[in-house]
Amino acid sequence: MQNKPFITLVGAGPGDPDLITLKGIKAIREADVVLYDALVNEELLQYTKPTCTKIYVGKRAERISTSQNYINKLLVDYALTHGHVVRLKGGDPFVFGRGGEELDYVRQFNIPTAVVPGISSSVGLTGLQQIPLTYRGISESFWVITGATSDGRLSDDLFAAVETNATVIILMGYAKLPQIVDLYKRHRKGNLPIALIQNGSLPNERIALGRIDTILEEAEKNLVGVPAIIVLGDVVAKHRGFEQIKKEIQILVGE
Amino acid sequence: MQNKPFITLVGAGPGDPDLITLKGIKAIREADVVLYDALVNEELLQYTKPTCTKIYVGKRAERISTSQNYINKLLVDYALTHGHVVRLKGGDPFVFGRGGEELDYVRQFNIPTAVVPGISSSVGLTGLQQIPLTYRGISESFWVITGATSDGRLSDDLFAAVETNATVIILMGYAKLPQIVDLYKRHRKGNLPIALIQNGSLPNERIALGRIDTILEEAEKNLVGVPAIIVLGDVVAKHRGFEQIKKEIQILVGE
Repeated sequence: MQNKPFITLVGAGPGDPDLITLKGIKAIREADVVLYDALVNEELLQYTKPTCTKIYVGKRAERISTSQNYINKLLVDYALTHGHVVRLKGGDPFVFGRGGEELDYVRQFNIPTAVVPGISSSVGLTGLQQIPLTYRGISESFWVITGATSDGRLSDDLFAAVETNATVIILMGYAKLPQIVDLYKRHRKGNLPIALIQNGSLPNERIALGRIDTILEEAEKNLVGVPAIIVLGDVVAKHRGFEQIKKEIQILVGE
Repeated sequence: MQNKPFITLVGAGPGDPDLITLKGIKAIREADVVLYDALVNEELLQYTKPTCTKIYVGKRAERISTSQNYINKLLVDYALTHGHVVRLKGGDPFVFGRGGEELDYVRQFNIPTAVVPGISSSVGLTGLQQIPLTYRGISESFWVITGATSDGRLSDDLFAAVETNATVIILMGYAKLPQIVDLYKRHRKGNLPIALIQNGSLPNERIALGRIDTILEEAEKNLVGVPAIIVLGDVVAKHRGFEQIKKEIQILVGE
């Protein structure tokens, strides 16, 4: 007897295995096959049934486009031969997760699909650090922007964002931090609070707090590296660790 | 013996009780007191221990400022007298949830705090509807903006957003839909796809899909009302229900 083909995109959350939703766990429990990414915590595979086929598709070194075509085909092949495929993706499937492309591909084969949202690192890692993305009188919005555009440049959206009061979160952009700092300096925002969060929600989490003018130093001092998210905006000053920085700056400028 | 004062802000997600995280459920299980909002699904209270005090603080009719001061005081009082207070909030605590203000208040009393992020309706309800917030070649970012500023006007951020290619999600802005439609029309975006999602993830969910030029009609036809989120951007055309709309428009203009 053949299981019915079905594909569910599930967001695994930002790293801590307890940051998946109950709905996500239920989907994993029912899955005949799980295809999972590099950024997914493997502890989540404990929820699979014994007969579930588990496939790692997170070869980061491989060229992205090849890899994406390959994953698309795997999704369809496994759905047709095994039944319910759970595509487990770090964060949320639609926040730079290429989930939309996967859905478009599999729909050509008339395979029914569902999506279980996940905690995006943009919202989740800032939350765990107790940095409020919005705050009355400080920020009326937050803007999540990719740092990894297809042609390698900074996103046009970032050039627009720097001119607003929105809290800005840049994902997959840590390698471009010096360019981003330059952009903000050119807009006279050297004083803007900024946070870097690497491996957020995991035991090896690292964080750096500062202002545009000091953050490159702070990143070095705190040994922050990829993968890290970048958070820019006055709300960052609400982080408990930011008070210390304010005092240091006051001493420095002799206030 | 006295329990130690501790306050955890927990995001309950957008409505479906399965859209809370495992970490959120664990916090509710440990809570001595739960203070919960109008938008929180009461089914989540099943996780509380028998001795837990459960208090509804979602009086929507009351004036917001009074109510917020009152909630702040309750948080502190209960933490000092009962121990671990879970503040259970709809969506994510920091996405227009005033969680930042609550933290600021309780920290004055040196009560330790933690935050468990939740699925924001901005990411979760679009995800469930299989509208990808980002998509290579279509959208490199998404921008979440409040529709309920303290002085009642449209946020300045929305005036900036209309000039970008970002996917825009407006929360708590449904009452201002006609003004928002006008703004987009003035920017010659009458053709931009837009979705309205009311009571998302719940059995009484309603959705309307259309373009800026048609959405007010569609909202009426589909009986959409508050509370609803507004999603604007070309990615909305990826919704499966959008194909039908495209066909209708083609017939209308005789293509």
